[in-house]
Amino acid sequence: MLGTGLIGLFYTTTLIDRRSCDSIRVVYSRTEERAKAFARQWDIPRYTTDLKAAIEDPETDVVVIGLPNDCHEEAVSLAAAAGKAVLCTKPLGRTAEEAKRMLDMVEKAGVFNGYLEDLVYTPKTLKSLESVRRGALGEILWVRSRETHPGPHSAWFWDPRRAGGGAIVDMGCHCVEIARNFIGKNNRPVEVMCWTDTLVHPIDAEDHGIGLVRYESGAIGQFEVSWAFRGGMDLRDEVSGTHGTILLNHWLRTGFDLFTSGSSGGYVAEKVETDTGWLFPVGDEVQALGYVHMFRDMLDALDEGRPPMETFYDGYVVNAVIDACYRSAKTKKWEPVELDYWRADSPTPRIKLNANEIDGKLLIKEEYMPDGTIKRIFRDKESGDISQTSVPAP
Amino acid sequence: MLGTGLIGLFYTTTLIDRRSCDSIRVVYSRTEERAKAFARQWDIPRYTTDLKAAIEDPETDVVVIGLPNDCHEEAVSLAAAAGKAVLCTKPLGRTAEEAKRMLDMVEKAGVFNGYLEDLVYTPKTLKSLESVRRGALGEILWVRSRETHPGPHSAWFWDPRRAGGGAIVDMGCHCVEIARNFIGKNNRPVEVMCWTDTLVHPIDAEDHGIGLVRYESGAIGQFEVSWAFRGGMDLRDEVSGTHGTILLNHWLRTGFDLFTSGSSGGYVAEKVETDTGWLFPVGDEVQALGYVHMFRDMLDALDEGRPPMETFYDGYVVNAVIDACYRSAKTKKWEPVELDYWRADSPTPRIKLNANEIDGKLLIKEEYMPDGTIKRIFRDKESGDISQTSVPAP
Amino acid sequence: MLGTGLIGLFYTTTLIDRRSCDSIRVVYSRTEERAKAFARQWDIPRYTTDLKAAIEDPETDVVVIGLPNDCHEEAVSLAAAAGKAVLCTKPLGRTAEEAKRMLDMVEKAGVFNGYLEDLVYTPKTLKSLESVRRGALGEILWVRSRETHPGPHSAWFWDPRRAGGGAIVDMGCHCVEIARNFIGKNNRPVEVMCWTDTLVHPIDAEDHGIGLVRYESGAIGQFEVSWAFRGGMDLRDEVSGTHGTILLNHWLRTGFDLFTSGSSGGYVAEKVETDTGWLFPVGDEVQALGYVHMFRDMLDALDEGRPPMETFYDGYVVNAVIDACYRSAKTKKWEPVELDYWRADSPTPRIKLNANEIDGKLLIKEEYMPDGTIKRIFRDKESGDISQTSVPAP
Amino acid sequence: MLGTGLIGLFYTTTLIDRRSCDSIRVVYSRTEERAKAFARQWDIPRYTTDLKAAIEDPETDVVVIGLPNDCHEEAVSLAAAAGKAVLCTKPLGRTAEEAKRMLDMVEKAGVFNGYLEDLVYTPKTLKSLESVRRGALGEILWVRSRETHPGPHSAWFWDPRRAGGGAIVDMGCHCVEIARNFIGKNNRPVEVMCWTDTLVHPIDAEDHGIGLVRYESGAIGQFEVSWAFRGGMDLRDEVSGTHGTILLNHWLRTGFDLFTSGSSGGYVAEKVETDTGWLFPVGDEVQALGYVHMFRDMLDALDEGRPPMETFYDGYVVNAVIDACYRSAKTKKWEPVELDYWRADSPTPRIKLNANEIDGKLLIKEEYMPDGTIKRIFRDKESGDISQTSVPAP
Repeated sequence: MLGTGLIGLFYTTTLIDRRSCDSIRVVYSRTEERAKAFARQWDIPRYTTDLKAAIEDPETDVVVIGLPNDCHEEAVSLAAAAGKAVLCTKPLGRTAEEAKRMLDMVEKAGVFNGYLEDLVYTPKTLKSLESVRRGALGEILWVRSRETHPGPHSAWFWDPRRAGGGAIVDMGCHCVEIARNFIGKNNRPVEVMCWTDTLVHPIDAEDHGIGLVRYESGAIGQFEVSWAFRGGMDLRDEVSGTHGTILLNHWLRTGFDLFTSGSSGGYVAEKVETDTGWLFPVGDEVQALGYVHMFRDMLDALDEGRPPMETFYDGYVVNAVIDACYRSAKTKKWEPVELDYWRADSPTPRIKLNANEIDGKLLIKEEYMPDGTIKRIFRDKESGDISQTSVPAP
Repeated sequence: MLGTGLIGLFYTTTLIDRRSCDSIRVVYSRTEERAKAFARQWDIPRYTTDLKAAIEDPETDVVVIGLPNDCHEEAVSLAAAAGKAVLCTKPLGRTAEEAKRMLDMVEKAGVFNGYLEDLVYTPKTLKSLESVRRGALGEILWVRSRETHPGPHSAWFWDPRRAGGGAIVDMGCHCVEIARNFIGKNNRPVEVMCWTDTLVHPIDAEDHGIGLVRYESGAIGQFEVSWAFRGGMDLRDEVSGTHGTILLNHWLRTGFDLFTSGSSGGYVAEKVETDTGWLFPVGDEVQALGYVHMFRDMLDALDEGRPPMETFYDGYVVNAVIDACYRSAKTKKWEPVELDYWRADSPTPRIKLNANEIDGKLLIKEEYMPDGTIKRIFRDKESGDISQTSVPAP
Repeated sequence: MLGTGLIGLFYTTTLIDRRSCDSIRVVYSRTEERAKAFARQWDIPRYTTDLKAAIEDPETDVVVIGLPNDCHEEAVSLAAAAGKAVLCTKPLGRTAEEAKRMLDMVEKAGVFNGYLEDLVYTPKTLKSLESVRRGALGEILWVRSRETHPGPHSAWFWDPRRAGGGAIVDMGCHCVEIARNFIGKNNRPVEVMCWTDTLVHPIDAEDHGIGLVRYESGAIGQFEVSWAFRGGMDLRDEVSGTHGTILLNHWLRTGFDLFTSGSSGGYVAEKVETDTGWLFPVGDEVQALGYVHMFRDMLDALDEGRPPMETFYDGYVVNAVIDACYRSAKTKKWEPVELDYWRADSPTPRIKLNANEIDGKLLIKEEYMPDGTIKRIFRDKESGDISQTSVPAP
Repeated sequence: MLGTGLIGLFYTTTLIDRRSCDSIRVVYSRTEERAKAFARQWDIPRYTTDLKAAIEDPETDVVVIGLPNDCHEEAVSLAAAAGKAVLCTKPLGRTAEEAKRMLDMVEKAGVFNGYLEDLVYTPKTLKSLESVRRGALGEILWVRSRETHPGPHSAWFWDPRRAGGGAIVDMGCHCVEIARNFIGKNNRPVEVMCWTDTLVHPIDAEDHGIGLVRYESGAIGQFEVSWAFRGGMDLRDEVSGTHGTILLNHWLRTGFDLFTSGSSGGYVAEKVETDTGWLFPVGDEVQALGYVHMFRDMLDALDEGRPPMETFYDGYVVNAVIDACYRSAKTKKWEPVELDYWRADSPTPRIKLNANEIDGKLLIKEEYMPDGTIKRIFRDKESGDISQTSVPAP
């Protein structure tokens, strides 16, 4: 386990705290004090401030990277050199170029690699992806993914030199990959349009970002991120298809409402901006954030000799989309997604619903009316003229 | 009452059906049959297929235009000529140019004019606007307005020559004006970025559109419209401010859930794509859509000699924003909003939160930690370096 | 308008504030100061502290009683004597005996009488009742009605001598009549079981009550009331039928969520226990509480010469049910509902679903299994033995 | 693992399917075919139709009973005789007498015993219990627990001779124990009032039940169960305290909404009565139902030598409450809960909020008014008279 911050804590909780057959044998932190405290808290046999030593530890089978963004490449490079399986937190790199170097390292070394994009692994997302694969929504038209909260916990996130950017590189990476999973990993992200601004915080990086990613099929992946949302953390996804719709609320409204006047003394609830009034807790946070199913897939995949659902290649594609976003935010126009590697089986065709034809006219809409008739709206193929008829319902 | 389609029906229901002191004296439709049936159904003394006659009818004090988009200008022109108060449905024009001509007509004639933008009048929106004015949300950063459904009822909507466009001109006009009300009517819409596509229907107009409108203060008004949403009608608005958040769901989830197996025979529920399984009815539709409070404001304003909340000028601004959207969808870049008239009291300053300074460093974030300390993240004003300290909580 | 308290205020807002053809000509209050202030605020021509004078005022066509419970009978008696139409707030009486006297008065005098039970008139309830009448839910089995809040505003409510009881007489009267509307007004309430307690407040009346009302058909009307609920006002109804379900949330979760940090100064939101954090406002309160549709029905009924949906007779039945509740709370057993008047067209038969018979066995359940078979569970009519078979799905 | 029905399946999924350090070594079923198929599916080394052999298997450390209610006692008796730890599904017995015999067996044999009441272990419930313990809700007044669905899957549930009753013994056992956890296990359940009826199904057992359980402190635990609910499964709990409220929705509305027109072919979604229209899936069912945290606690408790959160003693108390419910349903009055064993540290005092006294009067309510004053309602301690004052807010 590399890293003892919030993300290292979530990963460790998930890996250890569940009657698991897996264990953490050595933990690395940049400061000895934190490494030691973390090892003690979680009953980890060894701790170290030597990154190389942690990775090369003979009991280390899998290297789990939970470090700041600017430390990923070095850790991946050491893991690849040591021939160890490596799981890296999101985003993979600060730029597509950095991500590509990491991808090349692990592929050249032939080591197992997993991209720890937890939010595609939430139980709700996994079940939704299954429904989409079964055709419940028809063809996917539009996916909207939102992650907003009042800003990250650690200092380095706020420094674009270390993080690679602001809210987009921090949270947009989730949104981009969630949309890509729904729209199809075979469906090439073609171009992006993105707005960013720094509206609230005294920082150089963006604290707001909205982006549209257009895919080969015509589908749109939309993301919205903010480090200035008030009211807690808002994690929502929406998927629109030709035959159905999915609405997911992962955090703020999940069927758990608590009101407290806060007047009975003591610490009463986790602090979500406020600790009185109506609060919306989450039952099991590591589960709701996808960590449980993510590590299960990663480690099962390693055991079974198959790639996991998310690999470094996916991390690289996400970085390439984000790079295009930052370019678009500057040029103020759509920018192409530049991908040196694109690994699709085949091109994805344009979204197409074949309109019914009746008497040589295209049927636009058919509606059952309260008076028992069917109203049909047509378009003449030649003239483009719109007409309307009413027939008795069968 | 000009028009006997769905919108004429909603307007009439609202005006008559509530022990009102107002009454409809003459109804106009393009076909005699519909005019007659409508008059009979609603107990309206006179009906006609002569637009001018309806407007000039001596009992007509107020002309209410519920006609297709390409018929607005003629009706406004006749009403202005007759010196009658005129209320026109949304959108005002098909283009800003057309809207400007209508605005000029009513202002030159000095007649009372109201823009029937119902969705800024829903009880939830009115109460939200009041909270925003009182400062509950601080400065507004971002408004997101969504209107999606499976497509309009009348044939003419689908013909861009008559409607002026597709989903954006039909529904985006609502979203633009909702955002503008929250962000502030004094806050100039500067430029827009917009994506449109025709993904599902065999038509020339767009059936999907997403747009960002950047205002003078830096605030963003975002709209999302679709004529291909599955699952009913989705009307939602979200407002983010520096100190708060509002989430409005006007239609699909309002605390009214009905499940029916549909097996007890007969017509069981209004048809919202399906009529079995879980349905989400709306108690009083004309109220939920804002018609009740809209006509109250319009007619009270007329009685009191003040302008209503929404005038032709607002309709013109909306059309100017939409024109810029269509340009942006073609040029694939941000396009300026071109306004011949801009009637603000004063420029709106850039959104600005003054960051606290401690020892010459800007405070980015302050957080109470579970261990009883306060964690503070700072930015050095010169170097931009990010640092972090921990102090005991008071 | 008799009464200038909260209820008089709600009634007046509803009657006047909506471009109405109705007007209030005289207002009565027990103190001159309040009568005068109220008249001034609402532009009412006359005010008085003389109950008889208000009722006999020549411009008074309809007497609206918004007085404390112990003042209803006198006002009704004067209105009946004056031959005026009379609308009385809920509960009609403090006891069934008192309610019966009032019912007798208006019926003997032959005056129009309406029972102002607003909560059966909320738009959601009216639309639900319509769905139930159409058969969307099949036969009604169980209605649950909940009204809980932190306690009433006026002092007299807390005095059981004046109010006739506590939370049950205050709010249970709503719940009983809501359930009765869904279960059917022809369906006799037979017996009740009720628990009450005074858990929180230093009062003689109950601040909590839960009751079950068993109807002739076997259906159950359940109510839950509390004067000690934390988190605002909770108004929810649930209806279960053999073929469907309705869930109504009238107040606390209606698609309007507002978060405010409360730090931008000034009064930011209506006080619902708290004024910071997550708040759940209601757009148009008088509409959501049913006042608008209630007065429309009452006054339309008067104009049309038909009885309104709720009459004094209904108020009397409700009082009789409540009397039985208070008896049951004391005897700790089911108590019969004693009705001197029961005006049903015919007895309501016992709820009965005819179970399908297959090969002489009663079918209990049929379920489509994932493996493509149908599982059927049977009961042998003689022995009562349960058995199970599996057949291929058609 | 004893039993291969739905409950055996849930238990097995939970125990095996999560990179667990635990394993199932032998499975028992009454029919060889099912035992064999189950063992094959889940990779369990041995299967048997010999209950004793399964329990005495040398690799069996823990006996998990997932059998019909009438088979619990025999399995417990064999496990106790074999000195094996034993975990038994709910309800423990069909009657308190049966449950008491099982409790005596395991306690006499000194074996570890766990009562598999999963619903007190859902992540939402566990976190809620923690908030309650911390005082977020003050003293608990009222807990309402609801479990309703269209009826159980297996035939034996419908036979009261085998199940011990109907919906109450099947689902009320959950509700009773959920309420007991919130109200406090030290708080004696004193008496119950219960209604049951068979409204829909052709069976001898009740398909509906509503009960009130009064505890020593005055708190009320309310349950509502039905085998005839339409619309899926409804699992909700509500907790009211003197200072707060919790609302839990475990199944039907958890932030996962899916609409499908069902027209894109094939099996699209799990069948929840319907498979088109709006569906409300659950992400990870075994987690949402509490199985994951239940087995973690049970097996951790065994490893750590402490009792689990739920033991056979709790199962016995639940059966005693249910016995009283069935008596009450017959006698139509409150019935005492008869407990041969009651293991509380000390009696629980009556709920008591000390009302503030001002000038010798008890303060009933204090409210901040919009006009800046504080309204106070008092009760005179001697006369019981209610009065009211208004003072300026500080």
